[in-house]
Amino acid sequence: MSARSDLGPAQRRRLEMLQEPLKAQGISGLLVTQPENRRYLSGFKPTDPQLNESAGFLIVGGSLAILGTDPRYEIEARREAHGYTPFIYSKGLEGSWSQITGLLQGMNRLGFETGGLTYHFYQRLKKIVRKSKASIRLTPTQNLVEGLRTRKDPGEIKAIRRSLAITEAVFQEMAATLRPGQTERAIAWKIKTLIHQKGGEAIAFEPIVASGPQASQPHAEPTDRLIQKGEPIIFDFGAKVDGYCSDLSRTVFLGRPNDRFREVYGLVRLAQEKAEKGIRAGLTTREADALARSVIDQGGYGRHFNHSLGHGVGLATHELPSLSPVKPALLEPGMVVTIEPGIYLPGWGGVRLENMVVIGEHKSRLLNREAL
Amino acid sequence: MSARSDLGPAQRRRLEMLQEPLKAQGISGLLVTQPENRRYLSGFKPTDPQLNESAGFLIVGGSLAILGTDPRYEIEARREAHGYTPFIYSKGLEGSWSQITGLLQGMNRLGFETGGLTYHFYQRLKKIVRKSKASIRLTPTQNLVEGLRTRKDPGEIKAIRRSLAITEAVFQEMAATLRPGQTERAIAWKIKTLIHQKGGEAIAFEPIVASGPQASQPHAEPTDRLIQKGEPIIFDFGAKVDGYCSDLSRTVFLGRPNDRFREVYGLVRLAQEKAEKGIRAGLTTREADALARSVIDQGGYGRHFNHSLGHGVGLATHELPSLSPVKPALLEPGMVVTIEPGIYLPGWGGVRLENMVVIGEHKSRLLNREAL
Repeated sequence: MSARSDLGPAQRRRLEMLQEPLKAQGISGLLVTQPENRRYLSGFKPTDPQLNESAGFLIVGGSLAILGTDPRYEIEARREAHGYTPFIYSKGLEGSWSQITGLLQGMNRLGFETGGLTYHFYQRLKKIVRKSKASIRLTPTQNLVEGLRTRKDPGEIKAIRRSLAITEAVFQEMAATLRPGQTERAIAWKIKTLIHQKGGEAIAFEPIVASGPQASQPHAEPTDRLIQKGEPIIFDFGAKVDGYCSDLSRTVFLGRPNDRFREVYGLVRLAQEKAEKGIRAGLTTREADALARSVIDQGGYGRHFNHSLGHGVGLATHELPSLSPVKPALLEPGMVVTIEPGIYLPGWGGVRLENMVVIGEHKSRLLNREAL
Repeated sequence: MSARSDLGPAQRRRLEMLQEPLKAQGISGLLVTQPENRRYLSGFKPTDPQLNESAGFLIVGGSLAILGTDPRYEIEARREAHGYTPFIYSKGLEGSWSQITGLLQGMNRLGFETGGLTYHFYQRLKKIVRKSKASIRLTPTQNLVEGLRTRKDPGEIKAIRRSLAITEAVFQEMAATLRPGQTERAIAWKIKTLIHQKGGEAIAFEPIVASGPQASQPHAEPTDRLIQKGEPIIFDFGAKVDGYCSDLSRTVFLGRPNDRFREVYGLVRLAQEKAEKGIRAGLTTREADALARSVIDQGGYGRHFNHSLGHGVGLATHELPSLSPVKPALLEPGMVVTIEPGIYLPGWGGVRLENMVVIGEHKSRLLNREAL
């Protein structure tokens, strides 16, 4: 049915790696609706325009490689998803599904991604399957493709490196022109402009520029507040290159740093270095988090480090693994994660420093050109 | 429990209007997870950072007005969601839910939004409710708040007008500097820059700049193609002001228009005018669509108008009602919709013209300052 021999080498490898977890769950086909998973397995680039609007779905597993989409994306489907059989539904998914269930003859269990579709879409799907004559059973799955995505291949690491290099260059240029009296919002716009000018295809997420007391919220949105001397400013932003995100945080103090800033900044940097040096395959995410957290705890600021140490980065800014103390998972070679300890003091501000590393067997490799 | 007397007037009215549909379904409380619905009912502005990351949820109905969020958004919750009781969950939603189910004592059915949560979140919710001692039954709902959102109040129409005025001014300035040899991508970036400079708080969606054959795809992404004389270029973009979107399409021909462009453009404009004049409350969306479609059919291009006439616009770029011939719904006063007929000819290009109107009892009002 499908022209699988035309699959790109990365997509072929990924589909092969997927066979084992599918087999383990007795699933003959997987319906892929999560947008980054869709791109990862097929190369099809369009993103979903809105929460309730999908650019398409895949059905993969065994010898199946189908990309379903509507006529708006037909050209991209044929150009980008090499080796996939395009299935163009012009009368809405419901009206066309009978054609696709025809392709699934003999299929027993069809897996679906519980984190990649709304409850509403699930209900529609159930109805469609019931109406069709296919004897398919819908089976919930979780993080099957997200799990594969955690370990990056060399092509992915290259894209992340390029993305991060742009982000670092943007920080350098932006930081060189920082002046008291600029608004957080204007600086955030400048960051977006520089990301575009330096070749980023998009921003990975809306830039954070948080000055003074604003910096005591880990995820403050830029405001019209004027930045000024004598207070910390947290920057957190990233570019996208070939679909891959980067994520960088730096904290700047305009003017001569005071004692408190020196103390807090020094502690955060120490915690970060400890984690960068110690993180490696075989540790749990809890152990990785503890590398940095113990430093901040010992410095007396433990309760002001109120988020986890970091997260995976790839086609999404935030993806698995979460370097969280709550649900420990094992770190594996090839994972790309952020190392971003922070200390936030209500009323005063905060310091966060964020680098990216690729996890290795014995030690990990910093992806930043400038550690700081 | 909640400080409902502090509710903003718009939020109070919306919560009151919600009571009837809730009562009709025997629902004592509604869990609101859809991000635009959350903002509409509470005034809480943060958007969800990613598909699988929520900035919070509401529980409303009867005398309930609760805003649940994590510590990252606590300041916004207290500042923006007047009259709502903040519920800050620091150990993840699961760990904190027992506190909230305590607030729901005596509640019978808790509605949830099938289009506003993933199947995975639904499963978690079911587990949490089962574990708690509350005797709550989860009840699926669809488009309860989306239905209210279709009819705009004067404050909403004002924000949409401001947003559209910025979008129109951006088009004027951008069009005045169009030259052969510019890339689609560079023009799209210029549009984004102008939206920022003219006071848009964000773009409503990624701008479309589609030249020549690219313009035969209704939703082409900008490429590095150089625009040139003798071909149509479709622009489709919008700004956001106070959370409200605008949506404008124009088609430009560089150089002296040839006969085919004149014919196609004239037909699309005629279809648009017919729909703008005829659309009013009491028509079905199918009848509204037919106003324009019949003109294009009679002109012999019917099969090249391969999308519906338009869609609602508000806190989301695409919202209800869809002016679709497929599922007819009744138009009501106060709805804000786009009127955007188009003709797309493979290999040649296309023409789309898009204005916005607010539906009235007897006739509708154009929201654009310049009809064309």
